[in-house]
Amino acid sequence: MIKTDILIIGAGPTGLFAVFEAGLLKLKCHLIDALPQPGGQCAEIYPKKPIYDIPGFPEVLAGDLVDNLMEQIKPFEPGFTLGERADTIEKQEDGTFIVTTNRGTKHQAPVVAIAGGLGSFEPRKPLIDNITDYEDKGVEYIIRDPEIYRNKRVLIAGGGDSALDWSIFLTDIASEVTLVHRRNEFRGALDSVEKVQELKKLGKINLITPAEIVGLKGDGKIEAVVVKKEGEEFEKETDHFIPLFGLSPKLGPIADWGLEIEKNAIKVDNALDYQTNIPGIYAIGDINTYPGKLKLILCGFHEATLMCQSAYQRIFPDKRYVMKYTTVSGIDGFDGSRKEAEKAVVKAIE
Amino acid sequence: MIKTDILIIGAGPTGLFAVFEAGLLKLKCHLIDALPQPGGQCAEIYPKKPIYDIPGFPEVLAGDLVDNLMEQIKPFEPGFTLGERADTIEKQEDGTFIVTTNRGTKHQAPVVAIAGGLGSFEPRKPLIDNITDYEDKGVEYIIRDPEIYRNKRVLIAGGGDSALDWSIFLTDIASEVTLVHRRNEFRGALDSVEKVQELKKLGKINLITPAEIVGLKGDGKIEAVVVKKEGEEFEKETDHFIPLFGLSPKLGPIADWGLEIEKNAIKVDNALDYQTNIPGIYAIGDINTYPGKLKLILCGFHEATLMCQSAYQRIFPDKRYVMKYTTVSGIDGFDGSRKEAEKAVVKAIE
Repeated sequence: MIKTDILIIGAGPTGLFAVFEAGLLKLKCHLIDALPQPGGQCAEIYPKKPIYDIPGFPEVLAGDLVDNLMEQIKPFEPGFTLGERADTIEKQEDGTFIVTTNRGTKHQAPVVAIAGGLGSFEPRKPLIDNITDYEDKGVEYIIRDPEIYRNKRVLIAGGGDSALDWSIFLTDIASEVTLVHRRNEFRGALDSVEKVQELKKLGKINLITPAEIVGLKGDGKIEAVVVKKEGEEFEKETDHFIPLFGLSPKLGPIADWGLEIEKNAIKVDNALDYQTNIPGIYAIGDINTYPGKLKLILCGFHEATLMCQSAYQRIFPDKRYVMKYTTVSGIDGFDGSRKEAEKAVVKAIE
Repeated sequence: MIKTDILIIGAGPTGLFAVFEAGLLKLKCHLIDALPQPGGQCAEIYPKKPIYDIPGFPEVLAGDLVDNLMEQIKPFEPGFTLGERADTIEKQEDGTFIVTTNRGTKHQAPVVAIAGGLGSFEPRKPLIDNITDYEDKGVEYIIRDPEIYRNKRVLIAGGGDSALDWSIFLTDIASEVTLVHRRNEFRGALDSVEKVQELKKLGKINLITPAEIVGLKGDGKIEAVVVKKEGEEFEKETDHFIPLFGLSPKLGPIADWGLEIEKNAIKVDNALDYQTNIPGIYAIGDINTYPGKLKLILCGFHEATLMCQSAYQRIFPDKRYVMKYTTVSGIDGFDGSRKEAEKAVVKAIE
């Protein structure tokens, strides 16, 4: 059982920044995210895209914003349960909550903050009858650890940035990279398309287009796929089949937690602390809704901050926290680190 | 008469960021600030101090944050009335407001957003009977334009960072720099104290301590000050007397605008759009109050953003604005500039 003060569901920018604000209040956080790395959409969907509306950044790449936030929260030593989806929540007699993931990991905390963005990102799966039989047995929809493909034959399906970028990346790791797409045209960054073109000419990527994977074969694990190209079907041997057809956000199991839901988002009390209808459960960032709500990262930052103050009162009902400015008081990390402004000296001039 | 869409009172971080969010909605902004430059406290009081709680910045100097915000809003060409305090507001029959400053500058807009921080910063004045007679006649409490001191004799009073830093700065401009402080000890950044010590030894700064200015002399303008040192009084000729005893924020004339005030702050509707009790007048950032309010820059950014959406509805009641993400839609500056993410290409690989 993982125990923490604030259990944050969703490790996108809002969830990450909540760790910082909680840390200023000396509260520990643990984050759960269905994706294999922190950063949410910013890291998974558009890490190389610029964002122009983060205050103080005329332009920042989404991936860099995530890196900055990870550095900012580092002193507060957040815990992470990644690649797992929060599935169930149970309220305990002592008022705490236990949240269990789809892989059975259990987390306990007095406060739960849902920072789930548009929901947990679920891969779009190809329509192949027996595909679920091979999941984790050679079929992967998200690449968690590229090292598992070392010296293996991989076959990627898809026509977007993920398919292009992973095909390029895996040429240095896998023994064979095949890229299958139902059209001849790919849609992605010009750089990536040109790089795949070049690697194809060098014989480092096998390109099969326009084609689709229509069947999977193998005893207990993937051994081959059935490719259909221009009406003809043939088998292609491979150790891994990686369909990268994009991720689609789903509210998922959270929808059954008894929270008040409106237009696929969780209703919160924006007049006070972004708490849901269940005391002790908050919703912050894109996943919540209230009158005038804007799904902007900068709004999530504010909501996370006010949520932490309320969480503090919930955890320590008898303490009164007096807010201190970081410029004045500095930052005391849980790791023993300290950051502070240079102090003024009082010194005679003679 | 200066006309604009949103008249922002206060050019601190919150007011500046409001220009950006208004710009995305194609609304023009004009800012009024009592200080001589944009940035509020961040620029005037602690430009060289680090802030640790701006989301995405593990550490940022207050002055750099202001510079970044100025760059971020540049495409939206904000207007500025600086060094003037907003004094009166009058509602017109057409629903717009006219705001007049202490120097008589008039501004007209359908929406007024008060982003006044802790209030307008008023200098702490030394207790010298006839000092008001010499204001703008050789007595300045804030240095607006250092060039007016070129080849003049200046006498600065004070013992903090402002007194130290301006004394250092003006040695290159003024013909004579005298620094008077009531103690021998100065309080400031170690660098600054040491630099003044060095300049004193080089004869570039006259230091008179422990001493006070107790009188002002001159016909129509400052010609000399009366210095009291260890019980003895003597005259010292000077062209300018600059007491730098710090700035103290005052709600000031805004307190008489008919707004609902609570604990020296303006009450707003945080459940909706940060509007005050007077429709069309909003209050954002440290100057407002509501249940759970935190006086943090990051909260001001959020409040500014929601305020702009509401302002848009007020200005264009019949239009419905659909929010667009900057990563998707880019930024169209009023200056004709355009920023946008690199577009994906659709390209065949052969």
